[in-house]
Amino acid sequence: MSLLLTGIAELTTNDPERRDGHTDPGDALLGIVRDAALVVSSAGEVEWVGPAAEAPAADDRRDLGGRAVIPGFVDSHTHLVFAGDRSAEFAARMTGTPYDGGGIAVSVAATRAASDDDLRALVASRVAEMRAQGTTTVEIKSGYGLTLDDELRSLRIARELTPHTTFLGAHVVPREYATRRAAYVDLVTGPMLDAVVADGPTALAESIDVFCEPHSAHAFDGDEARAILEAGRAAGLSLRVHGNQLGHGPGVRLACELGARSVDHCTFLADADVEALAAARGTTVATLLPGVEFSTRSPYPDARALIDAGVDVALASDCNPGTCYSSSIPFAIALAVREMGMTPAEALHAATAVSARSLGLDRRVAPGQPAELAVIDAPSHLHLAYRAGVPIVRALDV
Amino acid sequence: MSLLLTGIAELTTNDPERRDGHTDPGDALLGIVRDAALVVSSAGEVEWVGPAAEAPAADDRRDLGGRAVIPGFVDSHTHLVFAGDRSAEFAARMTGTPYDGGGIAVSVAATRAASDDDLRALVASRVAEMRAQGTTTVEIKSGYGLTLDDELRSLRIARELTPHTTFLGAHVVPREYATRRAAYVDLVTGPMLDAVVADGPTALAESIDVFCEPHSAHAFDGDEARAILEAGRAAGLSLRVHGNQLGHGPGVRLACELGARSVDHCTFLADADVEALAAARGTTVATLLPGVEFSTRSPYPDARALIDAGVDVALASDCNPGTCYSSSIPFAIALAVREMGMTPAEALHAATAVSARSLGLDRRVAPGQPAELAVIDAPSHLHLAYRAGVPIVRALDV
Repeated sequence: MSLLLTGIAELTTNDPERRDGHTDPGDALLGIVRDAALVVSSAGEVEWVGPAAEAPAADDRRDLGGRAVIPGFVDSHTHLVFAGDRSAEFAARMTGTPYDGGGIAVSVAATRAASDDDLRALVASRVAEMRAQGTTTVEIKSGYGLTLDDELRSLRIARELTPHTTFLGAHVVPREYATRRAAYVDLVTGPMLDAVVADGPTALAESIDVFCEPHSAHAFDGDEARAILEAGRAAGLSLRVHGNQLGHGPGVRLACELGARSVDHCTFLADADVEALAAARGTTVATLLPGVEFSTRSPYPDARALIDAGVDVALASDCNPGTCYSSSIPFAIALAVREMGMTPAEALHAATAVSARSLGLDRRVAPGQPAELAVIDAPSHLHLAYRAGVPIVRALDV
Repeated sequence: MSLLLTGIAELTTNDPERRDGHTDPGDALLGIVRDAALVVSSAGEVEWVGPAAEAPAADDRRDLGGRAVIPGFVDSHTHLVFAGDRSAEFAARMTGTPYDGGGIAVSVAATRAASDDDLRALVASRVAEMRAQGTTTVEIKSGYGLTLDDELRSLRIARELTPHTTFLGAHVVPREYATRRAAYVDLVTGPMLDAVVADGPTALAESIDVFCEPHSAHAFDGDEARAILEAGRAAGLSLRVHGNQLGHGPGVRLACELGARSVDHCTFLADADVEALAAARGTTVATLLPGVEFSTRSPYPDARALIDAGVDVALASDCNPGTCYSSSIPFAIALAVREMGMTPAEALHAATAVSARSLGLDRRVAPGQPAELAVIDAPSHLHLAYRAGVPIVRALDV
């Protein structure tokens, strides 16, 4: 049965072909259609998009009552496969204990100790929580296993919920390898990676990622990160990088040099980093994760400067138990507008079109595309930031 | 039928009698009971509170599955009676247009133009949205009518939803009085106030409030505010004040001098203001509204310094269409922890026990008190700030 959706006060299409005719630059960027309608096929694809007055007939019809419809959020950076509770670490950090990545070991211990079923239930509940907040596509990283078996288990559970899985054996050096760092890099680039791609390069993981951070004793320096990324690339995985989160470092330039799809955090950038990102436009996206700066009381990256320099900027949640246990993309959008100089339209575009591109996806609302949509209990996308903290957006079940 | 609630991993009672025996100061402040149970009477009152192992029998039983239970949030500062959409003003402010209170006139025009039924439906939907986020008690101000009839209508509609109504005829000087300010003050303190108390001092409004702000041409200076508050007090209303929001001014000291229940905003405080608030402890609460600082990109007040000086600090949303269209108390708590130096326990206490006191209420979870409760989809109150932006708390229907 095809379904006609009407009563759409504002439809964000992200379709460049709908940019013309707008006086507002935000409306142009989002390819907005007002008083819109949408036909979804029985196969769940968009069949028709346009003004309600021109809508064709369909088998069924639903009136959205003057709400705004947007592409579902694409959360391109999450760490959902973990067990355990680190709320006390958060509370301690808010009274002055600095973050250095060391707390990851707590999640590693709890994750290793969890049963498959418990871990699966935790990840599924987090994905459901995200969908209830408008996220229809999610990337999930491993990285709290850090043994061959536990990394594989993490990826298998993640893959049950999304095709966009990322092997992050190089999240931190686990405690048992603290004095044998090179041996752990050998494990990640050797047996672990071999096992990840054993059934084909993307059978279990779409990408490989590394926490490149010379400012943390637990993370990886530039040479280690390069070895890990080059091994992943050789094995057929696309590349993602955690770069420049805690201080200046080589992560961003390394990601650009190696053609990573995304370099994430970008909190501390030198001019050369911004130039590298601008030159990598179309290949490497800078994914900003303002929930992390909120939850670690760090300075926010200057998204305005990045956009003005020509950098592709995406937004994602980084939902994880240590530095940001927020799964809310609307919250990330509100922070991007308040703290990072993005307009509401740029922030929404970053959390849909650009984050999608960093996963190799197209998220235009246009004929032939999957109907991955979200609906806002408000007449425009401006309310995502205007109504900060209020749960007004949810995935649209069609 | 009495109801036994079990499976409460952590119960915040706000009961001073439960402070002993805790090593954590936050747990002591909140009077926390772990592995708790609660009996609610058929009349909706708390009958029994204590450790689950000691719980008495009841007619019915519900297991909350290891969640945390807290007193429902008391949102002691809201402006819910309005029509119209000011999201574009928000978007403009985020790109640099400063806030001076002038936009209130937009809401006044839309509110005056709305039908009773439309206005009633808008207010009811906002109260329901708050309840879905854990707020069980709400104060509602008039202030977008600014004619005798429209202020009365606003209070009548608000009173249908809460006993905690506040007459805010002195929100701003309406445009039609811009060159006759004294005449408007006379209207507020004369015919408007007379009509508000015509059926008895608290028949329609519990309190009177004034936007005391010399930095806004639209608001009221110290002398005008004093005249309005003294008239309200003489008519039998309790006092609330919008003070020191946009800059230094007389609002806070005036509120303390006149024994107001609350002075709200307190964004710009001189040492003398802090001293006056500390001296007024037990009478006048400083109600901080960090959603406003978020949504106007203003500096946050220093809650840490206020608490350390001995000031009673409450948190509320200020939900309103101009400076903060967020109805989320969890969001205010997350901001209080991130930006204002409050601990998670202090922030929760401020949004329940202290905000309740500013409305003359007791919100301990103790025998004889109304069972106004909220439940968190998490094992502790720490998650309110830890999971910023995620809707994990809701009012508990018993």
